[in-house]
Amino acid sequence: MVPWMLLLFYSLLFLQSSPSSFAKCPPSYFPSSIIRPETQSLSSNNALYKTKYYTQILDHFNYDPQSYQTFQQRYLINDTFWGGPKINAPIFIYTGNEGNIEWFAQNTGFMYDIAPEFKALIVFLEHRYYGQSIPYGGDRKKAYKNPKTLGYLSSTQALADYATLIIDLKKNLSAIDSPVIVFGGSYGGMLAAWFRLKYPHVAIGALASSSPILQFENITSQYSFNNIITQDFRSESENCYKVLKGSWKQIEDTAKTKGGLELLRKSFHICKNYISGDSIEGWLATAYVYTAMTDYPTPSNFLSPMPAYPIRQMCKAIDNPSFGNDTFAKLYHAASVYYNYTGDVSCFDINDNSDPHDLGGWQWQACTEMIMPTNGNNEESIFPASTDNYTERAQSCEYFYKVQPRPAWITTEFGGHDIKRVLKRFGSNIIFFNSLRDPWSGGGVLKNISKSIIAIVEKEGAHHVDLRFKTDKDPEWLKNARKKEIGIMKGWISEYNRDLADSNIID
Amino acid sequence: MVPWMLLLFYSLLFLQSSPSSFAKCPPSYFPSSIIRPETQSLSSNNALYKTKYYTQILDHFNYDPQSYQTFQQRYLINDTFWGGPKINAPIFIYTGNEGNIEWFAQNTGFMYDIAPEFKALIVFLEHRYYGQSIPYGGDRKKAYKNPKTLGYLSSTQALADYATLIIDLKKNLSAIDSPVIVFGGSYGGMLAAWFRLKYPHVAIGALASSSPILQFENITSQYSFNNIITQDFRSESENCYKVLKGSWKQIEDTAKTKGGLELLRKSFHICKNYISGDSIEGWLATAYVYTAMTDYPTPSNFLSPMPAYPIRQMCKAIDNPSFGNDTFAKLYHAASVYYNYTGDVSCFDINDNSDPHDLGGWQWQACTEMIMPTNGNNEESIFPASTDNYTERAQSCEYFYKVQPRPAWITTEFGGHDIKRVLKRFGSNIIFFNSLRDPWSGGGVLKNISKSIIAIVEKEGAHHVDLRFKTDKDPEWLKNARKKEIGIMKGWISEYNRDLADSNIID
Repeated sequence: MVPWMLLLFYSLLFLQSSPSSFAKCPPSYFPSSIIRPETQSLSSNNALYKTKYYTQILDHFNYDPQSYQTFQQRYLINDTFWGGPKINAPIFIYTGNEGNIEWFAQNTGFMYDIAPEFKALIVFLEHRYYGQSIPYGGDRKKAYKNPKTLGYLSSTQALADYATLIIDLKKNLSAIDSPVIVFGGSYGGMLAAWFRLKYPHVAIGALASSSPILQFENITSQYSFNNIITQDFRSESENCYKVLKGSWKQIEDTAKTKGGLELLRKSFHICKNYISGDSIEGWLATAYVYTAMTDYPTPSNFLSPMPAYPIRQMCKAIDNPSFGNDTFAKLYHAASVYYNYTGDVSCFDINDNSDPHDLGGWQWQACTEMIMPTNGNNEESIFPASTDNYTERAQSCEYFYKVQPRPAWITTEFGGHDIKRVLKRFGSNIIFFNSLRDPWSGGGVLKNISKSIIAIVEKEGAHHVDLRFKTDKDPEWLKNARKKEIGIMKGWISEYNRDLADSNIID
Repeated sequence: MVPWMLLLFYSLLFLQSSPSSFAKCPPSYFPSSIIRPETQSLSSNNALYKTKYYTQILDHFNYDPQSYQTFQQRYLINDTFWGGPKINAPIFIYTGNEGNIEWFAQNTGFMYDIAPEFKALIVFLEHRYYGQSIPYGGDRKKAYKNPKTLGYLSSTQALADYATLIIDLKKNLSAIDSPVIVFGGSYGGMLAAWFRLKYPHVAIGALASSSPILQFENITSQYSFNNIITQDFRSESENCYKVLKGSWKQIEDTAKTKGGLELLRKSFHICKNYISGDSIEGWLATAYVYTAMTDYPTPSNFLSPMPAYPIRQMCKAIDNPSFGNDTFAKLYHAASVYYNYTGDVSCFDINDNSDPHDLGGWQWQACTEMIMPTNGNNEESIFPASTDNYTERAQSCEYFYKVQPRPAWITTEFGGHDIKRVLKRFGSNIIFFNSLRDPWSGGGVLKNISKSIIAIVEKEGAHHVDLRFKTDKDPEWLKNARKKEIGIMKGWISEYNRDLADSNIID
C-alpha cells in the first residue's frame, strides 16, 4: 500500500484525511489563501439568517450528573417567507453536518429558493462539537481535549439534539402543528434520513441528498468510491485517465532521485517547506477527489472556487498538447483548477493546517462510528492499487485518540443491510438524491424503496448539487430533479394537512 | 393529598411505590412468605430455558473510555421447537422489563405455547441493571451506588443492548435471515413496540401487550389509572365500591384515637412492628391496585397467588352479610385475597422490604425518564381525591438519587402525541393488546392505527393476560384474542418470506 493512501483515503465526507494525518499534518489540504475570503464573508450573511442559541443537554441517553451539563447549540433562522402557525406553514430544517453551520447555510440555497413557494420557515441546526456549538462552555480546547470530553460527539446525540431543539422551537413559536421537513447533504443527508426514520413524530419527511448511508461494513464495495472518481475522469478522456493513473510511479521515481524533490517542488509551485513524494501525491489526489465531489455544472465555491465542470477543465489541462510529454506540467495545471482557479496563489503550502470550515471533529467521528470503507483501489482505479485497511485505522485511532472504533454500530443503530427489504414495509417520506458522478453515490440509495421512499438518481452532477442555490445556467436535468423534489414534498404536506384536518374532526 | 397516596401511586408498572417509600419503607409490599416459594422455584426451570450470557457494552451512545466497559447480560434460550436457519425459522424475542428475566419467562407462556406451531426459537433478554445483568462486574451494590453508576440504566440503552445482542446471536446461529418478532408485556411491551419502531431492521414485528406508551406527559389523563381500578370494583358491586371508598376516612379516624392503631393492627393481622394509618392504607391500596392489574380469569401466581377473578372475590368479602357493619373485617378478608390466598400467612409484615423479582431499579427509571402521571384521583375514585404532583416527585428524586427527572424525554425520543396521525403514515407490524380492566390500559393504544398497526382490545382480562400460559379454563375471548395475534404474526412471517424470496431473485 502506498503510504499517502492511508493519509488521505479514510472515509470522511469532506475531509479525506486520517487520524494519522491529523497529527503529522493537520486535516485540511485547502490552501488557506483560497479558503479564507469565504470564511471572512460569513459575518456578512445577515440577510440569510439570524443567529440564535439553544441550551442543549450534553448526554440524552445517560443520567449521570455530567450528562446534565449543557451547552449552547447554535441555529440559524429565517422567517422572511414563513406563513406562520395560523396556517400551519411548514418548517424547513437543515440537520447540520460536520462543520460550521453557516457554511452549510450558504451552500444550501435550495431551501431559500423554494421557501417562498412553501411559505416555509428556514432553520439550520448546527451539529454539536462543530462551529460555535461546543460543549464545555464553548471551550473548544477542552471539548477536544481527550476521549472523555469528546465522547459525547456522536450521531445519535446529534439527532437527539435536533429532536429536542425542534420540539422546543415549535412550542416557542406556537407552531406545534406546523409540519417539519428535514434537509441535509452528505453526512447531513445521512442525519436527515436517519432523523425521519428515528423521529417520525418530529419530521414528516426528509430530503437526504448524497447521503451514503450504505457505505458501512460490507454493504457497499470499498472500491466503489475510487472507481467512481476513476470513471469521472475517464469519461472526459481516456488519455486523461491514463496520464493520471501513470503519474504516481513517475512522482515516486522522481522523488527518489537526487534533486528530485526540488524538481517536484518547482513543478508544482510548492512553497518552501517540508515535502515528500507522499505529501505531493496526497496533495494531488486531494484535488482529484474533491473535484470529483464538486464537479458541478456551474461555477461554484463550496470546497474551493471552481469553474463549471471542473473535471473537464482538469482533463483539458492533461490533454493539452502544448505540454507535450511534461507530465508534471499537466498535473500542475490540472491541480490548479482545484487549488488556484482564481490565480491568487503564488505558491502552495501543502502542509497548511487551517480548517476554515471547522471540519476537524470528523476525525473523531471517523475513529468511533463513521467507519466507511472507501480506501480500496482495484486495478482499474486512477489511484494505485490498495485495500481499505481497518486494522491500520483502528491502530491510528488508538494512537491518536485512545479510542477504539465500533465498526458495526451504525448498521446496528440505523440499519443498512437489506435496506430495501426492511424499508419497503416500514417508514415513509424520504427522498434520496444522488448524482452518479459523485464518488459518495456508491454508498447511496439508488433505487426506489417504496411509494414514498424515493430515489432520485442523476447521471450528471456532483455532491448534493440539488441543494445548491439555483443559477441561470442550471441544466435541465437539475431543474427537473428539483421540481420532482418540490412536488414530492408538496405531496407530503398536503397529505399531512388532510390527516391533520381528519384527526381534528375524529379525535 | 393523603400522604400514602404519594407513597404508593407513582407510576411504576409493577411497583407502586415512590422514591420516598424506597427510603422510608422499602419498595415491596408483598409478604415475603408468599412470594418466596415462587422465587425458589426459579432454579427448577431447566425445562423452560438454558441460561446464557452476552458481553454487552456499557454505553452505546458515548465514546468516552468508561463507555467501553462491559457487563454480562443474561439471556434465556430454548431451541426445542426451532426449525433452524435452513428454513429461516423465526426467532421469538422477549424484550425484558424491570425485573428478573426468569420471572418474565415463567409468566410469558404464550411464547412457549405457540413456538411449536411457528417452529420458533425462544429467547428472553434480561434488561440491564436487573436480575443478573448488572454492570460493574455484576456488583449490584456498586451499580446502584449513585447517579453516576446508575446513569447507564435507561430505556434507550436497553433497546440498543437488545439490538446488539440479537444481531450477534443471529450471526452466531448462522441465522441472519431468520425473522425476529419481539414480545413484551407492560414496560417490556413498551420496549417491544419501541424496538420495532427504532430497530425495524432487527425485528419484523412486535407484540406489545399492555404497554402504556401513552401514559406520558398529558397524553393520557392522570385520573385514568385509578378510574379504571374504581370501575373494576364498581362493576362487581356498587356496595363494594362504596365500602372501599368510605373506608379511608374510617381508618384515618381510628388511627387518631387512643388504641386505634392497635385495633387496626389486630383487625388486619399486622405483625408487631411500626405501623401508622398511612402505612395500613398503603398496604390496602396496594392490594386493590395489584389485584386490578392481575384480575385474571384463571388462577394465577404472577404478583402473588390468586384465585380466578380476584376482584370478584374481594368484593364478595366486602359484600359478605356475615360481617355486618364491621368494615375492617371486610377489608381484611378482601386484602387477604391478594396477600394470603394460600392461607399460609399468620401475620403481615407491612414493612417488609423484600424484592423477590428484583424490581428495585424501576425507582431510578421512574425518577429519570419514566415519568408517567397516574396519581390523580377524582371525585369518583375509589381512593381519596388527589392530584399527580410532579414537583413532589422531582423533589423526592433529587433527595434520594440526586437526579432530576426529564419528563419530556420519552415523548421526544419515542413520540406519543398524535400517535395515530404519525404512525398512520409510518411504521408497521405492531400489535397493541389491552384489557380494559387493566388500569394501565388507559395509557395504551386502543384503536387501530393502520392496516398493520393493530389494537386488540378486550373488555375483560388484566395486565398482559394474553401472554400467559394457556389453561383449560381460558375464556373464549382470550382464546380468540390469542388466535388473532397468531394469525397476524403468521401474516408478518409470510410477507417476510415472500419479500426475502423476491429480494433473492432481484438483487
